[in-house]
Amino acid sequence: MNLKEKFKDINTYFSPKVIGEVNDVYVKAVSIKGDKVPWHTHEKEDELFYIVEGSLLFEIENEESFTMNPGDLFIVKKGISHRVSSQKECKIMLIEQKTTAHTGTVDTEITKSIQQQLY
Amino acid sequence: MNLKEKFKDINTYFSPKVIGEVNDVYVKAVSIKGDKVPWHTHEKEDELFYIVEGSLLFEIENEESFTMNPGDLFIVKKGISHRVSSQKECKIMLIEQKTTAHTGTVDTEITKSIQQQLY
Repeated sequence: MNLKEKFKDINTYFSPKVIGEVNDVYVKAVSIKGDKVPWHTHEKEDELFYIVEGSLLFEIENEESFTMNPGDLFIVKKGISHRVSSQKECKIMLIEQKTTAHTGTVDTEITKSIQQQLY
Repeated sequence: MNLKEKFKDINTYFSPKVIGEVNDVYVKAVSIKGDKVPWHTHEKEDELFYIVEGSLLFEIENEESFTMNPGDLFIVKKGISHRVSSQKECKIMLIEQKTTAHTGTVDTEITKSIQQQLY
């Protein structure tokens, strides 16, 4: 599959979709626009962000924020509170443990269950 | 980190380097040119290929071969014999279990231990 092409199927913001499986890990595609992702933590799971299109503001508790651009890759380690947002549409590939909850233990209007993330 | 930039550190073909860690998974960058990768199988591990630059010929036992281009992503499932090659330089990101042996149980001149794949 072509990663950019895959995003043609993704029509809802903040709604990750599982596009692949590597043993205990899901590969997900998610498109976001705006700042609806709450501050949250994954206590036991690292999470990889890879930017496919657009720019992503990455905020990490007690650290300086930074902007990710296409081709940029960042792994937020377990237990680190973080939040992502983008003014314009941003397309992201995520690599996550299958157990990773979308917005950690924080439940908001955008929060999707793993079931909702499967096609 | 920017994935393309990361390849500036990778000066040897067929020598995967670990560039990130997501729980039990390694993210690796590898550059190849030629057909030195032997047919091999990972009995217990799926393996994700993502093409950063160049083209990759992907061969799978008893299936039709196909060519991967930049932005293409393919997951070869555990137990499936496969081989990759490229006439020109091809830059690849791999997502693999930490336990995944470079060329499965086949040992060749290019085979690297996990230790050799760490910076």
